[in-house]
Amino acid sequence: MRRPFMSLLAIAAASGILFSVLPAAMAAGDNLAAPTGVTIPKGYRNWEVVAPSQRDDKDEIRVILGNNIAMKAYRAKTLPFPDGAILAKLAWKRAKSTEFDSTFVPGEPQRVEFMVKNGKKYASTGGWGFGRFVNGKPASEADHGSCFPCHQANVKGHDFVFTRYAP
Amino acid sequence: MRRPFMSLLAIAAASGILFSVLPAAMAAGDNLAAPTGVTIPKGYRNWEVVAPSQRDDKDEIRVILGNNIAMKAYRAKTLPFPDGAILAKLAWKRAKSTEFDSTFVPGEPQRVEFMVKNGKKYASTGGWGFGRFVNGKPASEADHGSCFPCHQANVKGHDFVFTRYAP
Repeated sequence: MRRPFMSLLAIAAASGILFSVLPAAMAAGDNLAAPTGVTIPKGYRNWEVVAPSQRDDKDEIRVILGNNIAMKAYRAKTLPFPDGAILAKLAWKRAKSTEFDSTFVPGEPQRVEFMVKNGKKYASTGGWGFGRFVNGKPASEADHGSCFPCHQANVKGHDFVFTRYAP
Repeated sequence: MRRPFMSLLAIAAASGILFSVLPAAMAAGDNLAAPTGVTIPKGYRNWEVVAPSQRDDKDEIRVILGNNIAMKAYRAKTLPFPDGAILAKLAWKRAKSTEFDSTFVPGEPQRVEFMVKNGKKYASTGGWGFGRFVNGKPASEADHGSCFPCHQANVKGHDFVFTRYAP
């Protein structure tokens, strides 16, 4: 009985039947969407650096990356950022280096956050969709509600983006 | 007299005569070599991130980048790094953000440093050539002499490389 079943499975997989009946989120590799609709962009860890940053209150070290559209806009000083621009912020706990005094390196990963520019879709939040993920899972809706008000209050004049390009 | 001279200049430039008589360092965009022979690799600012780091004693924030060979080795956990691997460290003074409390961002650029793997050429320094540049100009020979002893004393077991890949 095993071989005919496997053959059916193979045929089903090859013809796309299997994937078509799975929920979209699962088919995309368990890439669940934040309440805003933002998902973790594929390959974001390979993007170029906008700048590192550091927060004393949270004892974190971060790096902010940008996709090609975002990096092009940064380098050309294009504001507002065009649709399609995506920024990624990777945050780790600061860990004291055991190999060199007074040096801090990334410790435990804390979260990964994204800002996705889509002027029409995210018109009510400055054209940006915000997504926060902890261990690959999206944060709550309440948590997401805190993103835009803070960006709006502090960096409205820089298209709601905190990070500047560090040359 | 102006136009015939300009025409000659255009012909000379087009035929490569002008560039062939300039010293190599100038032709490469004033990319002077460190005493170790290491030069600033073209396009390094577009490389992927290995990790950010921070130093309290120097009040600096940094990011370490790697070329494709280095990143491939990091991700495959290949040690020692293969010939051709290059790491870049960009260091800035920490600057307090004026837009968000307790946050530090890159301030004044301090230096850019490179580690170039070439087992044969740099056999006496663990297979790595070190290059330190301040405002695009190489640091002194004495300055370069301090690189390898510190890497040797602290991270010999990690192919003389401090920075680990931050996922």
